[in-house]
Amino acid sequence: MNLDELLLPAADNPTSSLRGRLAQTRAMSLRIADPLTEEDQIVQAMEDASPTKWHLAHTTWFFEEFVLKPHDQAYREYDERFNYCFNSYYENAGPRHPRPKRSLLTRPTHDEVISYRHHIDRSLDNFFDRGGTGPSPEALALIELGINHEQQHQELMLTDCLALFAGNPLRPAYRPAEGAGSDKPAPALEWIDFPGGIYDIGIGERLPFAVKAQGGEGLSFAVKAQGGEGLSFAVKAQDEGEGFAYDNEGPRHQQLIRPFRLANRLVSNGEWLEFMADGGYSTATLWLSDGWATAGREGWEAPLYWEKRDGRWHQMTLRGLLPVEPGKPVSHVSYYEADAYARWAGKRLPTEFEWEVASEALEVEGNMLGADRLVPQAAKRATGGLQQIFGDLWEWTGSAYLPYPGFKTAPGAVGEYNGKFMCNQFVLRGGSCVTPEGHVRRTYRNFFYPHHRWQFSGIRLARDA
Amino acid sequence: MNLDELLLPAADNPTSSLRGRLAQTRAMSLRIADPLTEEDQIVQAMEDASPTKWHLAHTTWFFEEFVLKPHDQAYREYDERFNYCFNSYYENAGPRHPRPKRSLLTRPTHDEVISYRHHIDRSLDNFFDRGGTGPSPEALALIELGINHEQQHQELMLTDCLALFAGNPLRPAYRPAEGAGSDKPAPALEWIDFPGGIYDIGIGERLPFAVKAQGGEGLSFAVKAQGGEGLSFAVKAQDEGEGFAYDNEGPRHQQLIRPFRLANRLVSNGEWLEFMADGGYSTATLWLSDGWATAGREGWEAPLYWEKRDGRWHQMTLRGLLPVEPGKPVSHVSYYEADAYARWAGKRLPTEFEWEVASEALEVEGNMLGADRLVPQAAKRATGGLQQIFGDLWEWTGSAYLPYPGFKTAPGAVGEYNGKFMCNQFVLRGGSCVTPEGHVRRTYRNFFYPHHRWQFSGIRLARDA
Amino acid sequence: MNLDELLLPAADNPTSSLRGRLAQTRAMSLRIADPLTEEDQIVQAMEDASPTKWHLAHTTWFFEEFVLKPHDQAYREYDERFNYCFNSYYENAGPRHPRPKRSLLTRPTHDEVISYRHHIDRSLDNFFDRGGTGPSPEALALIELGINHEQQHQELMLTDCLALFAGNPLRPAYRPAEGAGSDKPAPALEWIDFPGGIYDIGIGERLPFAVKAQGGEGLSFAVKAQGGEGLSFAVKAQDEGEGFAYDNEGPRHQQLIRPFRLANRLVSNGEWLEFMADGGYSTATLWLSDGWATAGREGWEAPLYWEKRDGRWHQMTLRGLLPVEPGKPVSHVSYYEADAYARWAGKRLPTEFEWEVASEALEVEGNMLGADRLVPQAAKRATGGLQQIFGDLWEWTGSAYLPYPGFKTAPGAVGEYNGKFMCNQFVLRGGSCVTPEGHVRRTYRNFFYPHHRWQFSGIRLARDA
Amino acid sequence: MNLDELLLPAADNPTSSLRGRLAQTRAMSLRIADPLTEEDQIVQAMEDASPTKWHLAHTTWFFEEFVLKPHDQAYREYDERFNYCFNSYYENAGPRHPRPKRSLLTRPTHDEVISYRHHIDRSLDNFFDRGGTGPSPEALALIELGINHEQQHQELMLTDCLALFAGNPLRPAYRPAEGAGSDKPAPALEWIDFPGGIYDIGIGERLPFAVKAQGGEGLSFAVKAQGGEGLSFAVKAQDEGEGFAYDNEGPRHQQLIRPFRLANRLVSNGEWLEFMADGGYSTATLWLSDGWATAGREGWEAPLYWEKRDGRWHQMTLRGLLPVEPGKPVSHVSYYEADAYARWAGKRLPTEFEWEVASEALEVEGNMLGADRLVPQAAKRATGGLQQIFGDLWEWTGSAYLPYPGFKTAPGAVGEYNGKFMCNQFVLRGGSCVTPEGHVRRTYRNFFYPHHRWQFSGIRLARDA
Repeated sequence: MNLDELLLPAADNPTSSLRGRLAQTRAMSLRIADPLTEEDQIVQAMEDASPTKWHLAHTTWFFEEFVLKPHDQAYREYDERFNYCFNSYYENAGPRHPRPKRSLLTRPTHDEVISYRHHIDRSLDNFFDRGGTGPSPEALALIELGINHEQQHQELMLTDCLALFAGNPLRPAYRPAEGAGSDKPAPALEWIDFPGGIYDIGIGERLPFAVKAQGGEGLSFAVKAQGGEGLSFAVKAQDEGEGFAYDNEGPRHQQLIRPFRLANRLVSNGEWLEFMADGGYSTATLWLSDGWATAGREGWEAPLYWEKRDGRWHQMTLRGLLPVEPGKPVSHVSYYEADAYARWAGKRLPTEFEWEVASEALEVEGNMLGADRLVPQAAKRATGGLQQIFGDLWEWTGSAYLPYPGFKTAPGAVGEYNGKFMCNQFVLRGGSCVTPEGHVRRTYRNFFYPHHRWQFSGIRLARDA
Repeated sequence: MNLDELLLPAADNPTSSLRGRLAQTRAMSLRIADPLTEEDQIVQAMEDASPTKWHLAHTTWFFEEFVLKPHDQAYREYDERFNYCFNSYYENAGPRHPRPKRSLLTRPTHDEVISYRHHIDRSLDNFFDRGGTGPSPEALALIELGINHEQQHQELMLTDCLALFAGNPLRPAYRPAEGAGSDKPAPALEWIDFPGGIYDIGIGERLPFAVKAQGGEGLSFAVKAQGGEGLSFAVKAQDEGEGFAYDNEGPRHQQLIRPFRLANRLVSNGEWLEFMADGGYSTATLWLSDGWATAGREGWEAPLYWEKRDGRWHQMTLRGLLPVEPGKPVSHVSYYEADAYARWAGKRLPTEFEWEVASEALEVEGNMLGADRLVPQAAKRATGGLQQIFGDLWEWTGSAYLPYPGFKTAPGAVGEYNGKFMCNQFVLRGGSCVTPEGHVRRTYRNFFYPHHRWQFSGIRLARDA
Repeated sequence: MNLDELLLPAADNPTSSLRGRLAQTRAMSLRIADPLTEEDQIVQAMEDASPTKWHLAHTTWFFEEFVLKPHDQAYREYDERFNYCFNSYYENAGPRHPRPKRSLLTRPTHDEVISYRHHIDRSLDNFFDRGGTGPSPEALALIELGINHEQQHQELMLTDCLALFAGNPLRPAYRPAEGAGSDKPAPALEWIDFPGGIYDIGIGERLPFAVKAQGGEGLSFAVKAQGGEGLSFAVKAQDEGEGFAYDNEGPRHQQLIRPFRLANRLVSNGEWLEFMADGGYSTATLWLSDGWATAGREGWEAPLYWEKRDGRWHQMTLRGLLPVEPGKPVSHVSYYEADAYARWAGKRLPTEFEWEVASEALEVEGNMLGADRLVPQAAKRATGGLQQIFGDLWEWTGSAYLPYPGFKTAPGAVGEYNGKFMCNQFVLRGGSCVTPEGHVRRTYRNFFYPHHRWQFSGIRLARDA
Repeated sequence: MNLDELLLPAADNPTSSLRGRLAQTRAMSLRIADPLTEEDQIVQAMEDASPTKWHLAHTTWFFEEFVLKPHDQAYREYDERFNYCFNSYYENAGPRHPRPKRSLLTRPTHDEVISYRHHIDRSLDNFFDRGGTGPSPEALALIELGINHEQQHQELMLTDCLALFAGNPLRPAYRPAEGAGSDKPAPALEWIDFPGGIYDIGIGERLPFAVKAQGGEGLSFAVKAQGGEGLSFAVKAQDEGEGFAYDNEGPRHQQLIRPFRLANRLVSNGEWLEFMADGGYSTATLWLSDGWATAGREGWEAPLYWEKRDGRWHQMTLRGLLPVEPGKPVSHVSYYEADAYARWAGKRLPTEFEWEVASEALEVEGNMLGADRLVPQAAKRATGGLQQIFGDLWEWTGSAYLPYPGFKTAPGAVGEYNGKFMCNQFVLRGGSCVTPEGHVRRTYRNFFYPHHRWQFSGIRLARDA
């Protein structure tokens, strides 16, 4: 493999190179913000959410702080105050503006943030163009990380936008609905069997932020973190596929899996209505103790964003307030609700390892951001194997978000990316209808607190074989 | 007096008529919002504050809800959803969007709110133009109320804007500072004597929302509230002056006042620094019990908006972050701080009655919004009578905000204007540097909770004669 | 007058002397605790309440800290750790155990606290017996204060005990009920007229803690507070009566009172049921804004301690859980409820000055602690003047608890007794069925926060004449 | 095996039978309460803790509710109000007194609770004595569960008592200290190697609450839960040992374990002081994000119960306030602190499976309740294998508390025992110095929230081999 392949866009496939994907990713963020007014982009719907403008600025700061400032000698800081404004949670990167007050950042203005984006984009371009004194392998790895980081924030922009519009009494649509909904229930649920055994799980050995390789034998290098001891990277052809992965997806290791069965589709709204009709939200013994307390305190009686209008359940979506369609998968449910539903159904949630094993033969394709639907779609077939694995909705697993055996955080701020959250959260797998194409993988581990509902989260049932 | 005088602008004095003052007031709100971006105008700095756009919309809704809808037969509601969005606290006017979530109202957009304003302005114009079927005396009284209501919100727009910019790490200025500050201390404090006696306090007899009269004998009418029993109004020449007053300023009644002395100026920043140097914030016995608990819980060590930079105290203002000037009056202090300071100084706060008596001979003029300074000014003279009585800063009094003897709330939503807040708050008098000219009066009773600091509030000392 | 008269018990009237009243008061506290187990005496029903044992210890500490330690040279501190344990809120007396955690003080044990009481009683006896080197006038004044202080805590012991037993699912009775209740409504309400005028209000001139004088011309002395400037006391025959008063009851001063009318009795349970039936708890416009928010947050639907059993309202009392009797006065209501009721009834609450004027001709007698009923009694007559003025229930007034003109706190810890609470509370007058005889006066100012309901508080209506 | 063996105490070993162990367990609870006054026994130190009297009553209620009422036809409920008072968290057993208010239960009195205990003890005796119509196998299984349940509460009595006395300014000792402490550091730490492999983990197949068998082939029966489908039990000789186990310890299943090394002793106070000296509590990057936030909010600067006196760290213990001994294991640390320490030390916490594997060859013996030390002891040897595995302190593992594969909760209230807590907590292993002998096992899974510190919790480090 040649380093240049990473840098130069291939004529026929602008996304085949790192540089091409960088440009595409940066452009996509602006495209997502496009339907929103400047007002929409500055407001913070709730503490967990962030303003769109902040997402646009923070993803830019990430490239400046972790790529340009430490790796491009020629680079001069754009505005020293931005580090305070747009650092999210990196203790190593210094003090920062408090998260619940991000909407106070009406200055720098929207225009100034866009200028900041352009400046950083140009600086990265210059960095690439410089050739020999351009990005080192370490810098390339961090650019790859920055691309993936920005993709995560693209999903959050839409997720947080839905929270904002759901809190607006006018219930505005991010994009107008297309066509009428369907009353058709989901096809009958089918169980798919998987054999037990010892499986390889996760990715790479000590490969936290690997540059996408297009074949070849790989490339070894080390990232020198700020005064730290360094971190070995490896880019090589791997059994589990090539390309970038987060540190929390490794080390690759073995898990003993018992035979299990997985539902071929997600739990549907129609099934959820049965759960509700059967007293699902008022039967304590279906719930984890913490979940029952949360549901009581918050007054949960239906998934987040559901509301009754004229005697019928509706759901707020990026397409506006729509009648709940029975065939579509239930979304915006917490782990507590997912767990209670599974208990009610006499089933359980899959482990993250089962999910990874089951997805082995599947292409990473589905109803994701590129499809531009912005809502999950109904399962299509009653038989024929797993559906909705990638895209549609993140799937709660019964696995606590913990480090894989041998996991070590990188030194410096980059090491705060994933590791410090390995407590009190649960793993979700598979991506959603607002996950950018190319972002999610079989080994990808998303994580949220069990009470979180504002994500595009759904449920796939499992059972012992 | 002729009703027409109320309606027709005098050529040489556009503010001499109700209609002229309406137009001027409506224009002023937009002028205040002008230096702010759309982003600045949608964000809510904290729970007590509101977004500028919300102020612009709410003051408009007030005219629609209380003037046009009940009094103009020809009027059709602009958008029925706006009542929910822009009602502030009137239980009688139906359910409403929760106060702490006003920044979620990114829709209706800023442009739509401006269109709403224009629509209501035109509708009020049409109403005036209609002549015989135009505004009844009741409607005129409510338009007068609407003008005064909007003036209150103009002050709040600037107050809330300061809270927003003070929470922004860039500390932006609403308007740039003019010239360098001064290190000169305030002139020596002088005590002005006032004799005891029985004084008339407050305004009018049953004159809650009186139309400004320009002489003549007054005009009696009654406002029919929604299904209520009505409320008698009177517009007449009065001892205490003519014109509009809020219901909480009456009924006029007698108070027995003991001889007292009042400081000729406000407490200065320089004096406040002495209080701080003497352990003012760490000496429990200077404080009310509730104040001490609040100061401890909130970590108060200086007035709100003060911060130390390079070893020197600065203060965030509408003119940006400026060094604290010793000669200027201390501002953004709570009642608790005002009370503690007075105890430390061996003095006390004046009662609201003493303040009203003392201000009797003074013109209602001073450093108010029209002066466009946006910060309080230093006292000028060591002698020569009371200074800074009107404008500069609202002055905390030692009087709890309670109804005057015989006070009755009007039926209907308008009756919620002042009466339901007569508990747990203290009266402030005199207006501030951001109070619109013509809004404040000798009898004007402002009120805030004793822990509130985000207002333009200051301190004038009193002592027994 | 001779100082000895203060010290030596008169043979035929053991309470006629300070020393006799001291002995009687100290004994009474133990008698109140007597029906309670040691367990009952250590538990804290809620943050506002205190354990009985703590009351017993704290009232003892008060004599040790303020009388024996500073005034009896021969006295040696009993246990230095007790100052930390049993100081309530005196910042001047050093750090203290946090109020919400008083129940953690299981040690010193109950027996040890009783021994502490006996030790202090004996020490005070010795102090008295010493003659010439015995209590100075200052010490006598502080003993008088200690007696009154302990009486206040006697009332609190019973008030807090009711809170404890009301929170116990067994609803135990402090003392068994006597006889069946009555379904008879209260006699028709009569209005008593009072003329307006200028009235003397409050007590004494600079007479905060006066020793009870038995005639004569009075005695002047000064209390030297810890390093302070001293505080002048005066014991003399006064227009407003003789004897002890708290500092907050003075200075005596003039108030201008308008003609007014007062209800001859307290609002009854039967009337309260009408208020409830008419939607009193669900009609926002009847309530102060803060009251409405509190009622909603706390879920108020009836007075504190009311609960429905088998479709009928019951009320938890010191006599156990009893059916609500329509003729008895409604009790355990907050200021917010009292104010809402008055508005519903088209009346108002009296000011504390009106109450004091109205009570002028009345003997200080009624259903108080000595009557041993422990519950308020129904009014007896439809006519014949004011009833239930003293005893039965503390009466909420519409007066904020503020200092009287010229009020100054004493230096040192004793000065914290009342002054630092003069904010955010309302004045109650007249005492209750658990107020010790001899404790309350016409000028007595009790005070609680407007949301407080655990006191024996009720309502007397007023109206303009 | 003969059922009689379960019931009849063997002459030479009173604990060899279920009945003997029941008697012994019931007596032990009273012995633990013995040094405490009635006051000590009613107070609740904090929300997580419970009063001793409540523990005494609740453990008794457990036998009444789950054994006598459903299984003994002859039994009549003692007092129907006790179910409300003394149910802890069983939703299936009806409404209950709120946990944070358990100290309000001063009635029933301490004497009444003791009478209740005696009554239930006699009733269980009668049940046993009845022979043929005596306890069924199901009832016996539930009695066994009740014994183990009461043992858990014995440990909690002492844990909660420490919290109570630590909150008392007198810092009373539950039992006086014996002898002076030692300044000797812990012996050097040694690492013990364990090979990887596939290991059996947990206990039994579907054996939630098994009766202790003394050999023989076991006994199968089914517990019919209230209207449920039943639950199969098995008592048999098993590889993993015989006797009772909780449902959460099964099903027995296989885990793939990588080679690992375990510290031969617990982390010592001396080592903790090094961690503190090196900025352990002020270095964000050592901490999990949630832990860092908790430590900041709560102001953690040392383990719970540590305080500095005269410049030296002391620790509150059941033996009173003692100087911190460097050789003793650090105790009362949260998971967050344990995790931060391990990261600081460059090591990690063991998984619960590693701990179980490592303990395989060890006898279940150590410094437990029977040793009557009530504080953890220092490790004795530098070499010679694992020390302090059982007793001394519960050891935080890095394993989230989740169900084992195939775990199902029993129907009815008994099924709420463990299952509903399988979320947000971490597993601790090995028992502590206040765990009753015979209670803990190799497979025993204790669990607490990661912020919990009031338990006797400590740290054993692990590392990859």
